[in-house]
Parts: sequence; structure tokens; C-alpha cells
Amino acid sequence: MVVENRLSDGKPVVGMETTVFVHGLPKKEALLLFQKANEISKKMNFQLAVVGILRGRVIIGMSEKELKMMIEEGAEKIGTREIPIAVSKKFNAATTVSATIFLCKKFGIEVVVTGGTGGVHPGGVDVSQDLTEMASSRVILVSSGVKSILDVEATFERLETLEIPMVGFRTEEFPLFFSRKSGYRITKVENVNEIVQLYKTMKELELGKALMVLNPVPKEHEIPREEIERILSKIDLKVRGKEVTPLLLGKLVELTGGRTLRANLALLEENTKLAGEIAKTLVREQICGILNSRIS
Amino acid sequence: MVVENRLSDGKPVVGMETTVFVHGLPKKEALLLFQKANEISKKMNFQLAVVGILRGRVIIGMSEKELKMMIEEGAEKIGTREIPIAVSKKFNAATTVSATIFLCKKFGIEVVVTGGTGGVHPGGVDVSQDLTEMASSRVILVSSGVKSILDVEATFERLETLEIPMVGFRTEEFPLFFSRKSGYRITKVENVNEIVQLYKTMKELELGKALMVLNPVPKEHEIPREEIERILSKIDLKVRGKEVTPLLLGKLVELTGGRTLRANLALLEENTKLAGEIAKTLVREQICGILNSRIS
Amino acid sequence: MVVENRLSDGKPVVGMETTVFVHGLPKKEALLLFQKANEISKKMNFQLAVVGILRGRVIIGMSEKELKMMIEEGAEKIGTREIPIAVSKKFNAATTVSATIFLCKKFGIEVVVTGGTGGVHPGGVDVSQDLTEMASSRVILVSSGVKSILDVEATFERLETLEIPMVGFRTEEFPLFFSRKSGYRITKVENVNEIVQLYKTMKELELGKALMVLNPVPKEHEIPREEIERILSKIDLKVRGKEVTPLLLGKLVELTGGRTLRANLALLEENTKLAGEIAKTLVREQICGILNSRIS
Repeated sequence: MVVENRLSDGKPVVGMETTVFVHGLPKKEALLLFQKANEISKKMNFQLAVVGILRGRVIIGMSEKELKMMIEEGAEKIGTREIPIAVSKKFNAATTVSATIFLCKKFGIEVVVTGGTGGVHPGGVDVSQDLTEMASSRVILVSSGVKSILDVEATFERLETLEIPMVGFRTEEFPLFFSRKSGYRITKVENVNEIVQLYKTMKELELGKALMVLNPVPKEHEIPREEIERILSKIDLKVRGKEVTPLLLGKLVELTGGRTLRANLALLEENTKLAGEIAKTLVREQICGILNSRIS
Repeated sequence: MVVENRLSDGKPVVGMETTVFVHGLPKKEALLLFQKANEISKKMNFQLAVVGILRGRVIIGMSEKELKMMIEEGAEKIGTREIPIAVSKKFNAATTVSATIFLCKKFGIEVVVTGGTGGVHPGGVDVSQDLTEMASSRVILVSSGVKSILDVEATFERLETLEIPMVGFRTEEFPLFFSRKSGYRITKVENVNEIVQLYKTMKELELGKALMVLNPVPKEHEIPREEIERILSKIDLKVRGKEVTPLLLGKLVELTGGRTLRANLALLEENTKLAGEIAKTLVREQICGILNSRIS
Repeated sequence: MVVENRLSDGKPVVGMETTVFVHGLPKKEALLLFQKANEISKKMNFQLAVVGILRGRVIIGMSEKELKMMIEEGAEKIGTREIPIAVSKKFNAATTVSATIFLCKKFGIEVVVTGGTGGVHPGGVDVSQDLTEMASSRVILVSSGVKSILDVEATFERLETLEIPMVGFRTEEFPLFFSRKSGYRITKVENVNEIVQLYKTMKELELGKALMVLNPVPKEHEIPREEIERILSKIDLKVRGKEVTPLLLGKLVELTGGRTLRANLALLEENTKLAGEIAKTLVREQICGILNSRIS
């Protein structure tokens, strides 16, 4: 297996998926987000590790050139179980949350940022690998909630069944990607230090689960849950499987006149900042080692 | 993380949850049960380790004074995933089966006693963390079956899917907390030695699952399943989540004129005796170490 | 625990379940299959390790005499969770896929052959231990697909949720035991070397899942899915639990005039050949050690 590590030692790191760039955003916005996220990381002094598989090589810390190549050549959207297949078949593969946190854990990266996570789809038969991976990998995962196209109640319950701890960053409401409210209550944390102390306790307890840190979409970009649901109810999809999510998200952009796109970009920026702050505090408090030659 | 260990070295130990005291019984009966269980442990010469979290401190072997404090101040009912949250938020937290066996395993206690375990609730969406934890922690868990308010068939099937071994203590019927019969068949064991040999084999096989030892409610306290179901069918609850179970159990006490309360106390006593016998045999046969300084 | 190892050091090994012999085939065909599989293994120069529990002894590499004894005396059909029970109760026990791969993993056998695997039964409540075990044991499992009596869609989705990698051997169609087509797409591999490289990557990634290698039933023995479903829809079973599968398979033999029986035998032969080739390549490429004194 070829693994290419573009990170340098001695600095806090935040892992980031590639699916958001390849399947979640139009090309122009994808590259803008990549630049913006890199800017944030430079300014805040942490390393951004965009994770993906390019022609079978696992890359930890993709460059803009590589990301462009991936967008232009196209890439499979993969979860954890498809990682070995992509590597041995020499595919381009864009990692979803499950594949990203699996690779991050493997290579010693303990903070991961995303927009929204997967869960239980309506009907209860199609359930994302994200849940399985969050139930078995200890990382801090910063997101703005579960995707609103899911069965939210079933997803919320499944997260509990699978013993996945979660906290709301300055909120007591479980947020829903584009919406700040869902009616489900979670434990509120007020600052990064609280998150870091909680994660430290998880390590001491040897609890091997992801800590979900839920950072709601900024108020000015919020789209209320009812509005999202009204729009979703009008969409009649003819696809299934892994194509459902990108297609629905695309439709939402169209039907909201681009508002979900702007919300997506805004929340990803905010989540990247929060994840960077967490990664820096983890290193400062010596709760996680700095990424190093463990990557091979 | 602050862990306070009140156990002394060199004696067999039985772990016990705090939810039964704080959320499962009225205060008077809770304290009576605590005294009774301690009496049994003294007489039989094992240690009772009531497990709970008091103002963020994990306590292994709560005193009566501490339990009283917890009942009076109130405590969150928590599963495994809420342990790190309770510790870092400095809550009082009463452990359910999942949190209890997680902590017991972590601190080297291999026998745990409870009344009834959680499972799949009607509708199939709300599923207890107990099942997830039993599927990943090797301990011997003595109970009188799954709670009768659950979807018994779905719970029975899920226990199989999750590869959780179970045996009936002198019964071939899977018992249901208040009822000795359910119509589901399980393997019968006749004595404690059989249980202990079975657990030894699980250790040799490295099978990391809880061994459920099902000890039916004493005959004189049994309430037939049909009667429980008739009563349950009349209750119209307006709550959801973790409040459902305590509320339903409270309603059952009321509607049976206290019979379920007496049954609950009786079966908990019997289960404590059986668990104590198992713990003593495990130590005598050198299948598990005596609890020691591993707790830190 | 008594474990009897009939394998000699220094040769590639393929593990095989006993349920197919005891519960999946009539006695005459069962013994014929055993002889045929042994012939293949001799000719191809690998060892066949039929796994079962005889009067409580775990046997790795059963002889024909032992298998006959098991068929004549009868044997419980067991999954992983029943292994310690069979051992301590001194039952005869025929292992299903879950128990077989659990024992194979435990004793260092990395390639396992079967006919069809279990999954989600119609209704979604009865779910095979096979799925749980495939989600936690890294072996290469050669089969001809999931049993057609299952809810195929739910099973296909669950395999994804549980992060179980799968590839089709010279096919892009997820096969269904008796049928070469299901309408579900999988990744195709062209040769044994591809399978072995993929498994090597799984080991490097430390992905602890079974690799499902799907080898469709030979064309001349195929029974189209629609035909199987038409026949199944006419069967009205009065049993439940672990009796369902053997009974349905028996009924299918009867109602197809023996065609499913011939298909079963043909695919098991082909799968044994493929598994043998994989085991030999694994050893040659030094990806897995040869089975040795690890069995104790």
C-alpha cells in the first residue's frame, strides 16, 4: 500500500474528507473552500490534512493540484469498506466521513472536520457506514449535525444505541446541518477546553468511540427544518445507494436558489476553525501526540 | 478522571448498578435493598461494588451515605456513552446496565448483578445501549430477564444476532423480569459450577461478550406475562427516551398494588445471592483474579 | 477446552463449516461432498479443515469417520455465541458460517469456504450471526452469495453498513446462491492474485472485516432468481429461528426436483477450488503464515 504523507512533524493537525469537494460542491466552490480552509489553517497555525485516494495512493494532506486532478478525473465516493478496494484497484476515491475517520485514526490524526454526517435513511434499510465507524474509532469529529435528508429520529436514537458521545457547541439543540434546531436535546459545552477535557476522559476510560462535537450552522445562514422538509418532500428521486445524498444535496441547492450552498460553505469554515482550535488545545495539553513518523 | 475505589484486595466482588436505586425504586425501598444486598454480601463473604458517579467522581463501591446523597440530590440515568460527559460535567450519574458493565470491565470486576436488562423497544427505533455493551464486554451478568415493557421477540432475536451467550439458571424458559415464562427456549444450567466453566471457555476462546445468566423471579412473586401486558396496554405515556422505562415501571407498581415492587426486590435479592456465589467460585477456581490495584 | 488439531504444519489451509454437511444436505450427498472436497484438496495440495464440535471437543480438520458420527448422532446447528455452550455442555455442534470463521480466525486459518451466507430475514427482526462475525473477523470467505430465502436488499445494505468488503469473482453482479444475478452491482476481480493483494491491503490497514469473495453458481446449474422466488412464495412454514433455513432449503430441493441440491454441490466444489487457490497464493506470497502450533 502506498501512503503519501504531506504533513510535517510538530504541528497540530485536522483531518478533512474529500467527498465534500468532489461530490458535495460545484467545482468552483470546492476549490474556494479548499483555499479558504488552508488560509484558516495557516492563520491559526495548524495543518489541514485533506485525505483521499488518488490512483490507488492514500494521500494524507492533499495539495490543491491533487484535489483539482481528483475533481477533474472524477472519483468514487467511498466508505471504510471500499478503501482496500480503491487502493488495490488504483481508483480515485473521495472519502466520506467513515473512510476519513478510519484513515485519520490509522495515521494518528485525532481531530476531523466535516459538514454533516450520515445516518439512517428513511425506511431504515439504508444506513451509513459513518455510524459504524463512529462507533469504533476514537476521534473528535466536528460537524453541524446529521444530514437533514435522513430519518432524524432514527439517526438520533441509533447514535445513542451505538454509544457515540455527543455535545453541542454552545447549544442544547441537536442541530441538523442547515438548521439550528431539531427538537432533540443534547449536552452543551461552552468552550474548547471542555471538549478537550471530555476527550481526555474518553481516553482514560478507553472508550473507543468518536466524540461528536456539534457546531450549528451560523444563524445568518440557517434554513429552518420545516422549509428543508417541505422542499425535500417535493423531490422524486429515481436513484438509490450512494448516489442519493449528492443528488438530493444538488437539488436542494437548486430549489433554494443557492442558499444551502452558501450555508454549507459557511458552516464548513466555522467547523474548520473550531476543529483547529481543538487540535491546538489537544497538543498544548499533551492529550494527543503531534502527528509524526507513525505514517508509513 | 477521579476514581475512588472503596474495595479491599483479596475478596470476590459483585458489581451493581445505581439506576435501580435512583430510578427503579422509591427511596425507602432503595435503601432497604442496599442494606439487604450488603447483608447478603457480608454473610456470604464477598464484596458488593455499587457503581456510580457522584459529582463527577467515579465510585466503585458506594457507601450508604453516598447512595443517600445521590438519591436526595438526584442523578442523571446514564448509559456508557454518557460516562465521560458525567465525569467532565461533574454530574451525579446513576449507571444503567451498559454503564455498569463498562465500568466493571474497566476496573476488573467480572460479575455484575441487575434486575432486568434493556433491549429493543416497541417500534424498533429505540434500542438500549445495554445490548451494545453486552456485545462488547466480557462479564457475567446475572438478571431475571429483559424488561417486559420491551418488544420481547425483537430483543430475543437481537441478543442472538449480537452473539451474546445466555443460559437459564435451572430453567429452559427465557424469563421476563416479572414472569417466569416467555415461550422462548434457552439452554439450562443446573449449578454455579456449570456457569463458571462456561465462562472459562469464553475466556479461552477470547469471546468478548457478556454471559447472560437468567435467574427467573421467585415463583411466589411471579406476575404472569399476560397480566403485565394487559396492564401495559392500558398505559398511555407522553414521554420518550430514557424517561420511558422508569415511568412505565412506576405505573406498573401503582396498577399492581405494589406487586411488581415486591417482585423486583425479591428477584434482586436472589440475583445478588447467585452473583455472589458465582464470584466466589470464579476466584476459588482461579478463573478471574481478585480485584486489586488495577483500579486507579 | 479440548481442541484437537488434525492438520500438519507447512501447508496452506482452507476452513469449512459442518452445517452444510449436517443440516444442508442429505446424508449420502454430505459424505460425497466431503470426499470430493478432500480429493480436490489432495490434488491441489492444500489442507481441508472441516471445523466442528464433537461431544464438546473442538475439532479442526474432521475425519470422514468423525463427520459420519456427527451426522448419525445429530448435532445442534450453532453460531458463534453457542460455541462455549456446546463445549461446556459437551454437545455435538455443527458450525454455521459465523462459528466457523470465529474458530478459524482463532486458530490462524485465514481462508474459509461455504455455499451461501446468512443475512437479514424477511421482516428484519431475525438477522444472522454471520453478519456480526463477518463484521469482526478478518478472513477471506468464499461463497456463492447470500441465501435466496433472505431479504436480499436488506442484507446487501447491511453488509455495507457493517463495512464488510466484497468482490465478485469474474462478475459484477452480486450473486444469490442459486442465481448468478440479483441486480445489485459489486466490484469485479479477474483473478486470485487480485483477491490476495486486496486482502494484503486490508491487513496493512488493520481492517478487521471478512473479505467476501463471491463466486457465482456455475451457469449450467443456475436457477433464476424469479423461479426461486416463485417457489418460495408458495411455501408456508410453521417454524422459526434456526430451523427456518434448513427446512426451506429442504423444501427447495423437493420442489425443484433436486436441482437446488445439484447446484449446491456444484457451487461448493467450485468454491473449494477457488478457496484452495487463494490459500496457496497467500502462503506463497507470505501474506499469511502457514497454520502451525498456534492451535492449542
